Amino acid sequence: MPSDDPLAELVALLGRLPGIGERTATRLAYFVLAEDRAYASALAGSLGVLHDRVRRCASCGNFTSAERCRICSDPRRDGAVLCVVARVPDLVAIERAGSYRGRYHVLHALLAPLDGMSADRIDLDALSARVRADEVREVVLATPLSVEGEATALYVAQSLRPLGVKVSRIASGIPHGGELEFADQVTLGRAFEGRKDL
Amino acid sequence: MPSDDPLAELVALLGRLPGIGERTATRLAYFVLAEDRAYASALAGSLGVLHDRVRRCASCGNFTSAERCRICSDPRRDGAVLCVVARVPDLVAIERAGSYRGRYHVLHALLAPLDGMSADRIDLDALSARVRADEVREVVLATPLSVEGEATALYVAQSLRPLGVKVSRIASGIPHGGELEFADQVTLGRAFEGRKDL
Repeated sequence: MPSDDPLAELVALLGRLPGIGERTATRLAYFVLAEDRAYASALAGSLGVLHDRVRRCASCGNFTSAERCRICSDPRRDGAVLCVVARVPDLVAIERAGSYRGRYHVLHALLAPLDGMSADRIDLDALSARVRADEVREVVLATPLSVEGEATALYVAQSLRPLGVKVSRIASGIPHGGELEFADQVTLGRAFEGRKDL
Repeated sequence: MPSDDPLAELVALLGRLPGIGERTATRLAYFVLAEDRAYASALAGSLGVLHDRVRRCASCGNFTSAERCRICSDPRRDGAVLCVVARVPDLVAIERAGSYRGRYHVLHALLAPLDGMSADRIDLDALSARVRADEVREVVLATPLSVEGEATALYVAQSLRPLGVKVSRIASGIPHGGELEFADQVTLGRAFEGRKDL
């Protein structure tokens, strides 16, 4: 990354963003150049203070600019139910859906033994301590339905067993509006396995 | 844009980039948060100095960190042929194609009377002065083949007429590998109009 070519440097940095290839990064850099400098300054300023001003919630790991996030600070949320997610965007998606009224626990990691991410990346002590301290009745495991997400769910469930707390896993099946014709075999199998009495 | 929510502020700023909606902007912001702070700092730094370190080439308007761009400084480029483009990314695309060996003139604007962009946004005096000073033999108009690009090409061509320089327009027709079946009427019409003897 030669610092004597500021444009190439910016393109290289933007190209590290997810879903942004070199072509798009170049287009974005030219856009910033064509805009007046106030925009570039505002974006630079916002990025520069991001890590200082946004921290992890001391209770659940959600991003917050305060000591505790707005969900942990909200007395109307049910502290007896904990939803375990891998990443903050998953929490945001569940909040957008609007039906869950409990609190969260963000792992910020997934078990992926093949990629060399060992179990010590996941802080189970913090989760166990919280389950005990908050008298949690149920832990809902909402890690992804991928191999890594399933492995992590299993691992967390096992670690919680000695505490006697109820542990559940979100349902897997055909998505809303989905056609059976186009569902993959695993999803169809899960949909049958998880069938409910009517 | 409430400054008490640094994440929302960054999402709003990223959302102004072309092709980046709120959903993508949110994903990018979370990515930056999940990366270590060195990345955010580097990106902030790069954006912060961009407008100071990248300027317009004094000769042609291309972006450069020097007084004159690398194309204008290259003695092997044919100074007697000038290619007029609307924006720097167009110049970059022509350079990538690799067959053009002349120099450029970047307008940084297009004629778009309907959008209120009047002709005074286009600096024709600089172009005329350059044609005279560099003893240019041919000006190739490579503005887009859109309504605005065509209007601009016509406008530039008219202004150059008194100088007696040869003015040409890049060809319009079916793109390489293109099927006639899927070409629009205007393109097909231009392909016939611009046919060449074999």
